Amino acid sequence: MRDIFNQELKQLGTDLASMAAQVATAIERAAESLRTGDIIVAEQVIDADERINDLQRDIDDMCVMLLARQQPVDRDLRNVISALRMAQTLERQGDLARHVAAIARGRYPLTPVPEPILGLMVKMADAAVRAGRDVRTLIETQDLELAAEIQRRDAELDALHRESFQMILDPEIELTRQQVVDAVLMGRFLERFGDHSTSVARRMAYLVSGITVPSD
Amino acid sequence: MRDIFNQELKQLGTDLASMAAQVATAIERAAESLRTGDIIVAEQVIDADERINDLQRDIDDMCVMLLARQQPVDRDLRNVISALRMAQTLERQGDLARHVAAIARGRYPLTPVPEPILGLMVKMADAAVRAGRDVRTLIETQDLELAAEIQRRDAELDALHRESFQMILDPEIELTRQQVVDAVLMGRFLERFGDHSTSVARRMAYLVSGITVPSD
Repeated sequence: MRDIFNQELKQLGTDLASMAAQVATAIERAAESLRTGDIIVAEQVIDADERINDLQRDIDDMCVMLLARQQPVDRDLRNVISALRMAQTLERQGDLARHVAAIARGRYPLTPVPEPILGLMVKMADAAVRAGRDVRTLIETQDLELAAEIQRRDAELDALHRESFQMILDPEIELTRQQVVDAVLMGRFLERFGDHSTSVARRMAYLVSGITVPSD
Repeated sequence: MRDIFNQELKQLGTDLASMAAQVATAIERAAESLRTGDIIVAEQVIDADERINDLQRDIDDMCVMLLARQQPVDRDLRNVISALRMAQTLERQGDLARHVAAIARGRYPLTPVPEPILGLMVKMADAAVRAGRDVRTLIETQDLELAAEIQRRDAELDALHRESFQMILDPEIELTRQQVVDAVLMGRFLERFGDHSTSVARRMAYLVSGITVPSD
């Protein structure tokens, strides 16, 4: 019984790591499509999101099955509950990467926003990419130092997000209304992507320590 | 043992209903502050969000405790897992109501957006209020007809959201950049509030039927 449970828990970890890897790839490609205007890459992100959603459903089902059949306690229980929540968060991050890619694609062959806002959005996207990669590593390593680092670094993304509003409102920078709309939405999607990374980091701290790290 | 468990499940239901009632009040007040520009009401929403967050943590802790101590199966298990997820969704809806109130407050004594966009945003807010009230009722009654109705009605909110972009991009309507920013964000927050209501409705369908209703 215990052997099967350990195997199933391991499978759950593998699936979660695979989901995190797919989300990291999605945000990498979304950032690339934003930087280069590559519409093929943008469409890859949009198409791949369905697989991320499928994986979440699989993980959800497996968690419920594990809770019902194995009735885990202590760290095993935290493991299953954390997987349930992290999968939900990763699914949402996949959606956000898809939204960013959709904006990049929507204005093709133009970029969605002009410089210097494009440069700032690329910086935000790069910060989101780092967060996505760190979350993938965190899920594989369960390294609480990295979890703390992810939470600290999110402040940089938030600062860039605030800066984006200053630029958007700067009358010296010429913008069409469509560009204002795109900049506001893209900034919001990237900022939320970062928030979700810190949410995974907090859940990892809970999983490993059993202590809930309060959210903001 | 079973008696205690039933009592605890009942308490969980009561806490979740209380959370849903607080979220419904939050979005009602956010809509009111948007319509009337009442800064006191806006601040009530912002202050009250902390209690919604506290309630989520309580529900989370209780769910984990119930899983560990009672090791429920079947419908009892679905009950606990659904509570865990619904509380997470309701917490997020509280945040979104707070964001709407913060925009209403931020432009005081002006309204954040001029007519006709204000009228459209009020319509969106009213739709969100109805969704919030329906979710409160749904959690109390577990009525699957109402769950289906909530999911159908969200299409109206989505249609209003699309209409908001048409208005924002209409050169005939005079808007400052700040107003464009506020309209985009407010529309997004209200649309997401509606999405979360449908998410609760889907989870209720799962809780009652044991069958997962696919998300979009």
